[in-house]
Amino acid sequence: MTEDQIVSLIAGKVVARIRAAARGDGRKLLPVNISARHIHLSAGDVAALFGQGHQLTKLKDLMQPGQFACAETVAVVGPKGRFSQVRVLGPVRGDTQVEVSVTDARFLGLAIPIRMSGNIEGTPGITLEGPAGRVTIPRGVIVAARHIHLGAADAERFGVKHGQRVRIRTAGARPLTFDDVLVRVSDQFIPEMHVDTDEGNAAGIRDGDLVEILG
Amino acid sequence: MTEDQIVSLIAGKVVARIRAAARGDGRKLLPVNISARHIHLSAGDVAALFGQGHQLTKLKDLMQPGQFACAETVAVVGPKGRFSQVRVLGPVRGDTQVEVSVTDARFLGLAIPIRMSGNIEGTPGITLEGPAGRVTIPRGVIVAARHIHLGAADAERFGVKHGQRVRIRTAGARPLTFDDVLVRVSDQFIPEMHVDTDEGNAAGIRDGDLVEILG
Repeated sequence: MTEDQIVSLIAGKVVARIRAAARGDGRKLLPVNISARHIHLSAGDVAALFGQGHQLTKLKDLMQPGQFACAETVAVVGPKGRFSQVRVLGPVRGDTQVEVSVTDARFLGLAIPIRMSGNIEGTPGITLEGPAGRVTIPRGVIVAARHIHLGAADAERFGVKHGQRVRIRTAGARPLTFDDVLVRVSDQFIPEMHVDTDEGNAAGIRDGDLVEILG
Repeated sequence: MTEDQIVSLIAGKVVARIRAAARGDGRKLLPVNISARHIHLSAGDVAALFGQGHQLTKLKDLMQPGQFACAETVAVVGPKGRFSQVRVLGPVRGDTQVEVSVTDARFLGLAIPIRMSGNIEGTPGITLEGPAGRVTIPRGVIVAARHIHLGAADAERFGVKHGQRVRIRTAGARPLTFDDVLVRVSDQFIPEMHVDTDEGNAAGIRDGDLVEILG
């Protein structure tokens, strides 16, 4: 299969799952996205790491509109460990933000707080290495707090509101219920739960598996 | 503080927590043990890895009677990754068994099933390296299924039976409920839940934190 065929096959499966979720047998289902460690870069840090005038190269679109994985990777260097190829996600943001799991945090040698994306005040910094240079960011390393994305219509159908906390049950090899999951609603959003690799592994689930909002 | 003082301090805290759990405010509480990757060795593999006649050296007792962490470590070598210092737990067993997290499994480059300890039929093998030699075990690498240990009296007090599945709620930084947890009862057991590092990190809990049996 070509890469295009694989992408098309996977996209088809995702759409089928979302439609199945939307059919409304009364269960509030949505697919899960298991985020591996990754980085969002500010325009300034793109220039410092990849060279003045460099534009990020889109590798593939992510589920949420406008978000994409880039061809670029950077090295992330902590006091005790180093990840040599951390995927850059686009588009560029106001602040650089590195998202890792608690397992990764221990490997890097940092105590990293659990935060919602964008809330980086008081978080540790770290050193980044790209082909054109090295940057030490003063803050911006987080363990991303799990959350769900819902479009406004989905939120209404599911009876939940932006900012609410819900319980989410998984149905993988090691079933569990996440007890305190933030709901984020926007017209732009596609229904999707975001967890990190520790959470995905603890539940024995894979990317695209369906999870259920309880209550 | 000396190591003895630290051990004594920690032991005191553990006992206090178990007593608190046993006071019976109606909640069924027990401490959690978060197992990092480790290995149990057969007598034959101890000889092959550490030399003929070698006896395992006890470093410290674990909570469950008769179980102990050893001074010895081995390297565990998978198709894609290698862990150079994996702790040996004693005493020796009939079969060598390597216990890793799903994160570790991916790093090693193996698809490893979730199994109860001792159930190694059909599991992958791996290469082990010790100071005296190298062994490739034909099977025995597992991701340990989470479970709780209870003494017979604790099980009766909590109203649960050997082999039953229960739900366990955590109260850490990222609260969750493990939905399918096996209960193991023996006169020898000290009340304790066993999870791996992925599960501990997903819940934001630490060794010795209390968890609650629901229902």
